[in-house]
Amino acid sequence: MSDTAIQTLKKMLAHLDDAKKYQSLRDVMETLPAPDLAAVFEDLPPEKMPVLFRLMPKDLAAEVFAELTPETQETLIQGLSDRELKLVIDELFVDDATDLVEEMPAGVVKRILAQASPDTRQMINELLKYPEDSAGGVMTTEFMELRPDMTVRQAMETIRTNGFDKETINNCYVTKSDRTLAGVVSLRTLVLAKDPDQQIAGLMDDNVVSVSTDTDREDVSKLFEKYGFLAIPVVDKEKRLVGIVTVDDALTIMQDEINEDIAKMNAMAPTDRPYFRASLWDLYKSRTPWLLFLMLSATFSSLVIRSYENALAAVTVLTAYIPMLTDTGGNAGSQTTSTVIRGMATGDIRPHDFFRVIWREMRVSLLCGLTLAVCNFGKLMWLDGVGAGVALAVSLTLVCTVLLSQMIGSVLPIVARKVGIDPAVMASPLITTIVDTTTLLLYFNFARLVLGL
Amino acid sequence: MSDTAIQTLKKMLAHLDDAKKYQSLRDVMETLPAPDLAAVFEDLPPEKMPVLFRLMPKDLAAEVFAELTPETQETLIQGLSDRELKLVIDELFVDDATDLVEEMPAGVVKRILAQASPDTRQMINELLKYPEDSAGGVMTTEFMELRPDMTVRQAMETIRTNGFDKETINNCYVTKSDRTLAGVVSLRTLVLAKDPDQQIAGLMDDNVVSVSTDTDREDVSKLFEKYGFLAIPVVDKEKRLVGIVTVDDALTIMQDEINEDIAKMNAMAPTDRPYFRASLWDLYKSRTPWLLFLMLSATFSSLVIRSYENALAAVTVLTAYIPMLTDTGGNAGSQTTSTVIRGMATGDIRPHDFFRVIWREMRVSLLCGLTLAVCNFGKLMWLDGVGAGVALAVSLTLVCTVLLSQMIGSVLPIVARKVGIDPAVMASPLITTIVDTTTLLLYFNFARLVLGL
Repeated sequence: MSDTAIQTLKKMLAHLDDAKKYQSLRDVMETLPAPDLAAVFEDLPPEKMPVLFRLMPKDLAAEVFAELTPETQETLIQGLSDRELKLVIDELFVDDATDLVEEMPAGVVKRILAQASPDTRQMINELLKYPEDSAGGVMTTEFMELRPDMTVRQAMETIRTNGFDKETINNCYVTKSDRTLAGVVSLRTLVLAKDPDQQIAGLMDDNVVSVSTDTDREDVSKLFEKYGFLAIPVVDKEKRLVGIVTVDDALTIMQDEINEDIAKMNAMAPTDRPYFRASLWDLYKSRTPWLLFLMLSATFSSLVIRSYENALAAVTVLTAYIPMLTDTGGNAGSQTTSTVIRGMATGDIRPHDFFRVIWREMRVSLLCGLTLAVCNFGKLMWLDGVGAGVALAVSLTLVCTVLLSQMIGSVLPIVARKVGIDPAVMASPLITTIVDTTTLLLYFNFARLVLGL
Repeated sequence: MSDTAIQTLKKMLAHLDDAKKYQSLRDVMETLPAPDLAAVFEDLPPEKMPVLFRLMPKDLAAEVFAELTPETQETLIQGLSDRELKLVIDELFVDDATDLVEEMPAGVVKRILAQASPDTRQMINELLKYPEDSAGGVMTTEFMELRPDMTVRQAMETIRTNGFDKETINNCYVTKSDRTLAGVVSLRTLVLAKDPDQQIAGLMDDNVVSVSTDTDREDVSKLFEKYGFLAIPVVDKEKRLVGIVTVDDALTIMQDEINEDIAKMNAMAPTDRPYFRASLWDLYKSRTPWLLFLMLSATFSSLVIRSYENALAAVTVLTAYIPMLTDTGGNAGSQTTSTVIRGMATGDIRPHDFFRVIWREMRVSLLCGLTLAVCNFGKLMWLDGVGAGVALAVSLTLVCTVLLSQMIGSVLPIVARKVGIDPAVMASPLITTIVDTTTLLLYFNFARLVLGL
């Protein structure tokens, strides 16, 4: 739903509420998707929230609740009675309930756990053990489990009896008596099966791709993209099935990871809050340390310039091309570094491709650099009207700086990955600072050589 | 599967092939996921491809075929007989067949269409009408269709009869007799329904989110992320259901769009080829025009420096801080510009938030700038040992340049969106070039003022 639609919706709901037309309000809300209703709740005054919340049927209410930001969840919980809170907790999927417990302050957590059924409480505690960014931390324990010796008929019966509170039944997981994962069978296969007496063992895919509880959630989301799965089973160290991750979680993980990478690639500490939910202090904290670090790193370029002060004083026009040269070096470097970072993230470039990457980059960057140098030489001679010596020095620097920047830019992310640093921090800003110094050294040495300083 | 596993697999298959153990080869291939087999095919010598391809059961063969790069598909097709090609085309999902027709050279397309069944040919021609980056261009026409007056029993019967060649049956779409979309019902709902004689009209969700054939594919993928759908129906101008987009396509679209954004944000023309599949010429073409444009734009900073040559000649140490100042301006600018670009991409920042963004950025950037200026003043006075005047000029420039860069960086992407330019091109490199000139102007004017030049 578009923004304007959400605005209209807000006005309509406020109007119905003011007029106390609760039946109509309930009817309207039932027709709306949960994420849109959640968007409306975000901007409601706190005292209105419980009123509207109570009007929704409990499954919709739970869905809307799961979509709210932690701040709004907390406000809403404060307005609910213990009995109402219990209804919500019971209806939530256990992975959403676990996220809730992780986000709320201690007092609220106590109230939540007190209202949860013993079963739910146990599942929440189980899930809380896993780190948030692992497969264990994003999985749900509410999956559909079948046995290999069931017939199709028995399996469908089991699904009809137990399927209601599962996060998905589109894929059913077949486990042996020791709970180890034996295979997966889709609801589609079961429904389309010709013979209701066929055993699941003969229908299931016994070559299942699974992940372990400690697999990084980013790797989990990559498997979804590669194989087009709707869900991936998660197993513990003894290969017992303990949960599943569903594709909607994979989409969210992918977006989060990309936000994180883009922040790092632009010299910011990543935050997981949307722009307007982050406080000014959050923004300040995410930006200032990197700016400060890069500013202090620029000491090297200052030192280079100061040690060539005499050359600059002799031919003052040389200064005019410093920003152009350092910028071009930075831009060329960030082109390759972002290409390689992204290539590694999507799996197109692997650590053992190191020399292949260098060999490609060397040829491309030489072509790039030569093109730039030729254009630049012409511009300096005929438009800027500087001497041939200066034009030559600037152009020679260009070839070398593009070559060097693109080589450094392609090598650093791969090296970073090898030594265990996140390649994304090797992006534009850091590359710019690093290649500034080399660019300036090249420039002054070419100038000295060509102009005889 | 990891790289090493793929390598091992390649060796194993080559070994079995050499020994002519075709039955074992077939058995091994049947247990492997299609994307992994496709990875093996990519590196096979052309003459081996058809041999291995023929060993696979036809549904697996089609799945593997759909995963191959266009180059390998073309090579493989050249090794297949017309009859074999026909089997593949019949087994492919129609959206994959359409992609194939779009990628192949004219001669191969002719052969493909000649082998396709009349039905398939018609569906392919239908899909070819839509632009590649629209919902129509990514949808499939093989969806499960039901009628509102069917009972659950009749619906299940229809699914069992017609479900085999549908891309998904997890969601079934309910249409009226004029083919307009009436609702959606999940296979889960049908399976879990208590009463087999209940009508679909009473079970279906009649408030379906749908897109139109010309909806941008990026907007389609955002709907998947927002609502957690497994599929979205696509309707034509008369609201008739013409296709569906499935979540696996959404994941691919999301990755493609992000690759495109990251390329643009780093001054490259986007290519849709993986790194090693792009030719050197492709890489050259995607990089050089932007580098050239940015290099020529740096003329402004050269002009500023040349017009203040006297000031620089009088206090030569001023030159030493030019790279630090322009880099800091560029880094500060790219922080906000990437935050705003990403915020707009995920929907956190909307065009009407213009003034809210400016007001936030003004306060944050002032804090950032002041912190940097204080640290810098200390460093220049006590470490670099420059005079208080120079230290003051540099520090004053820092405050103003961080403020200005972050303001420009946050405003430009929003303005770009408003005038219909892709905000992603307003990122780091362009911002750097733009803020260079303002930074230098600020610097020289502060220097003149403070040092009385």
